[in-house]
Amino acid sequence: MVINDGDLVLLVHKGYKWLIKVERNKVFHTHKGFIDMNNIIGKEYGTTIKSSSGYDFYIFYPLMRDFIMQLRRRTQIIYPKDIAIIALYADIRPGKVVVEGGTGTGALTLVLASLVSPTGKVYSYDINVENLMYAKKNIEKLGLGNVVEFKVGDVTKHINESNVDAVILDIPTPWLAIPVIRNVLKPSGVFASFSPTIEQVIQTVNMLENNRFSEIECYECIMRQLRVKNGMTRPFHRQIVHTGYIVLARLLAT
Amino acid sequence: MVINDGDLVLLVHKGYKWLIKVERNKVFHTHKGFIDMNNIIGKEYGTTIKSSSGYDFYIFYPLMRDFIMQLRRRTQIIYPKDIAIIALYADIRPGKVVVEGGTGTGALTLVLASLVSPTGKVYSYDINVENLMYAKKNIEKLGLGNVVEFKVGDVTKHINESNVDAVILDIPTPWLAIPVIRNVLKPSGVFASFSPTIEQVIQTVNMLENNRFSEIECYECIMRQLRVKNGMTRPFHRQIVHTGYIVLARLLAT
Amino acid sequence: MVINDGDLVLLVHKGYKWLIKVERNKVFHTHKGFIDMNNIIGKEYGTTIKSSSGYDFYIFYPLMRDFIMQLRRRTQIIYPKDIAIIALYADIRPGKVVVEGGTGTGALTLVLASLVSPTGKVYSYDINVENLMYAKKNIEKLGLGNVVEFKVGDVTKHINESNVDAVILDIPTPWLAIPVIRNVLKPSGVFASFSPTIEQVIQTVNMLENNRFSEIECYECIMRQLRVKNGMTRPFHRQIVHTGYIVLARLLAT
Amino acid sequence: MVINDGDLVLLVHKGYKWLIKVERNKVFHTHKGFIDMNNIIGKEYGTTIKSSSGYDFYIFYPLMRDFIMQLRRRTQIIYPKDIAIIALYADIRPGKVVVEGGTGTGALTLVLASLVSPTGKVYSYDINVENLMYAKKNIEKLGLGNVVEFKVGDVTKHINESNVDAVILDIPTPWLAIPVIRNVLKPSGVFASFSPTIEQVIQTVNMLENNRFSEIECYECIMRQLRVKNGMTRPFHRQIVHTGYIVLARLLAT
Repeated sequence: MVINDGDLVLLVHKGYKWLIKVERNKVFHTHKGFIDMNNIIGKEYGTTIKSSSGYDFYIFYPLMRDFIMQLRRRTQIIYPKDIAIIALYADIRPGKVVVEGGTGTGALTLVLASLVSPTGKVYSYDINVENLMYAKKNIEKLGLGNVVEFKVGDVTKHINESNVDAVILDIPTPWLAIPVIRNVLKPSGVFASFSPTIEQVIQTVNMLENNRFSEIECYECIMRQLRVKNGMTRPFHRQIVHTGYIVLARLLAT
Repeated sequence: MVINDGDLVLLVHKGYKWLIKVERNKVFHTHKGFIDMNNIIGKEYGTTIKSSSGYDFYIFYPLMRDFIMQLRRRTQIIYPKDIAIIALYADIRPGKVVVEGGTGTGALTLVLASLVSPTGKVYSYDINVENLMYAKKNIEKLGLGNVVEFKVGDVTKHINESNVDAVILDIPTPWLAIPVIRNVLKPSGVFASFSPTIEQVIQTVNMLENNRFSEIECYECIMRQLRVKNGMTRPFHRQIVHTGYIVLARLLAT
Repeated sequence: MVINDGDLVLLVHKGYKWLIKVERNKVFHTHKGFIDMNNIIGKEYGTTIKSSSGYDFYIFYPLMRDFIMQLRRRTQIIYPKDIAIIALYADIRPGKVVVEGGTGTGALTLVLASLVSPTGKVYSYDINVENLMYAKKNIEKLGLGNVVEFKVGDVTKHINESNVDAVILDIPTPWLAIPVIRNVLKPSGVFASFSPTIEQVIQTVNMLENNRFSEIECYECIMRQLRVKNGMTRPFHRQIVHTGYIVLARLLAT
Repeated sequence: MVINDGDLVLLVHKGYKWLIKVERNKVFHTHKGFIDMNNIIGKEYGTTIKSSSGYDFYIFYPLMRDFIMQLRRRTQIIYPKDIAIIALYADIRPGKVVVEGGTGTGALTLVLASLVSPTGKVYSYDINVENLMYAKKNIEKLGLGNVVEFKVGDVTKHINESNVDAVILDIPTPWLAIPVIRNVLKPSGVFASFSPTIEQVIQTVNMLENNRFSEIECYECIMRQLRVKNGMTRPFHRQIVHTGYIVLARLLAT
């Protein structure tokens, strides 16, 4: 697979990563010298190139995970690990129809869109138009524009869709959206919500219990990275140990 | 959505779950009485029905996660949480071409197939024909038969495919397959391996370092479940705290 | 060190442990045969003896940790790990004067008494006289009777002592005791409380903030045990992952 | 309790801590102004004073834990949590006789000395004379000089003592000391070792199994701190998740 002018690539140097667009006659500056993009065009993915200061840089094609980490820089909320768990546990698969409450930077939107494509649909709500614009631009860059419909709106007040397979929330007051959601989800459909604090979780679970939901569960997903090195293997000393809690539930029929 | 004769449904009673096929004029026995399947047919998913002993049972449509847990009963290895992480971190999405080493019960196969469908492909190898047969039957039940090619073979010896997007291993000696895999993956492609013990991880990482792989990482994913109950919220006392380690890497171009 | 008639010993067989008193002409029954105590008397600690069914049993002298686990059987609250953390973080050392609220089975009392002895003092309160009697008997068995004063009373209402080095709580409503404790602790003294649920922690921390306490911290101590076995090393699959939270604080001067 | 000239005190300002000696006519400089020590002398512990820039500082008497954290700054190994677990699980109490292999900065020595005092004894070995000198100075500052005997020596080669209650190691190759230790511990005595990496643990456990040890266990102690704040309670995002593993065992009689 050969890198073309206009491609998005992941530039890697000793743990540092940059997600950039390749453009002819341009350079990309790093703390270890600049990269002449003309040297990238026509190369195979996975190639090693040298910066102007003589350091080795790898050029990979970007994974969904790299897009997420790139988007995370704007806010500080959801991590790839949480998105992974939510996507599987909410049964996000080709063809599914999903409502997302809280587009944010669109990191989760991206994964949802990718997983339901080409036949499924994501309806992504945010009260902030700037968020929607930013997310839309990113989604389109990845060719998933027709899978997502971005909507200005507050999911604690109103959701237009009905009979959807899953509703996924990443908003400050998920419990307020639950009376709305129970009219939006198809019976047996999945509710998933991501919240940083335990008080949010308690309120969300209480509200679910009073709104025809069952199989209510709350998880925290902790990823611990190991440094694997001959004779010196151990978990890294200092790591992210908390991002948020995931609340899951299924809607009962009336 | 209405339940039909022949559908797979998830029967739930107070934390107990059964994944069963609905068949007219049959009953399903539980420790809390039997369920008359004729009472299920024609009902909406999410409905509550009563067992012969008067207990409430919910009927949900099964999620991917429920299929995984069902398959787990035969062996004791990979959990939904690990599958979720592997799937996202290995960038498994519609259209991708993936080799799986170690079909096992086919739990991971099922998710891979579902995520790459309809245009992608999974080549799943196992040295045990019975495993392949069992997995094939399950994959077909879910209508994903044409997405997966099951192959009798030992991935530490030979893999037929080339230029694939990802190779995912769940075998006892993943390090032995690495010299084979580096000729199978496309440059920049993703390697992922799941292993229960730390010695397997050390050997795998050593071998990756000597075979043109970069961005080598090892993670452990720990899911901690909380009991959320007003005034009595805390993590459950006793839980699964270890299933295995996930090793990830990307192939460099020659 | 030789085992005498009347000694307390720890009997161990493949992970099973019994804390028993050696008595001449008595036998001790286990699921792997009985132990003739006459065979133990006069032996050295650390000796291996055979049960009537021919199984090997080790005889160790009991550690503080073994006494704790023995006492735990009556209730289900505090573990050695939590006691260890509380003891060090509350600065329990020879000569210190400590108030304990909630004697319970006396497991924590035992460690506190042992650590402050011979010159320090533990005042242990419980509203349940039976708890106090049971704990007293155990403390005396270990020769620490003169270090502990057991008191019937509710620490949320009244504590007689003043100017103590530390107050340690293991009661259902620790926050209610805080207005009492701020008149009991010496300035700069340590408050420590153990609670199973997060709601207890929140109430306790709120109350500390309003009662002249500073350096308020909340910890959860998780001990993960590894199975170390050549080529098969990994954490045990299923373990205790939560017992309770430890809240710590220091009293400011008026 | 009043602060005197020459006392060691803990100065605290918004999470920053300094362990300093109070000296008449001296000042202590911080990033938030300096503290005139004459203003501290004669004040009660727990008092709040103002720096030259008008910021509030608390003056507490230092806890064992504060001394440990102070000593940690020189190297980067053992934490209070690990010391707490080792001390309780190795049954360190008044009157016990303990050998310590690897004095290091003397953080662990300090706690051992404090806990076995006044009647017990700690023999602390290090191959580095500077370590021993530094630790000795600190131990004497706390009035525990007569409890500890510091010895220049390599515990993997020779230990002079015999019939001791416990041997505690914090050295790079603990396994090499085990054949020595089995002649030093009293039967039924406790072995404890702290090691950062898993390979050290595997070698240590193997050696214990071949040297008459039983009840071999390996633990990792993880302390997770929670931010408790009304409506915003959650674990802190980024924390220390690994310091080292603790290996425990008991010696059988010959």
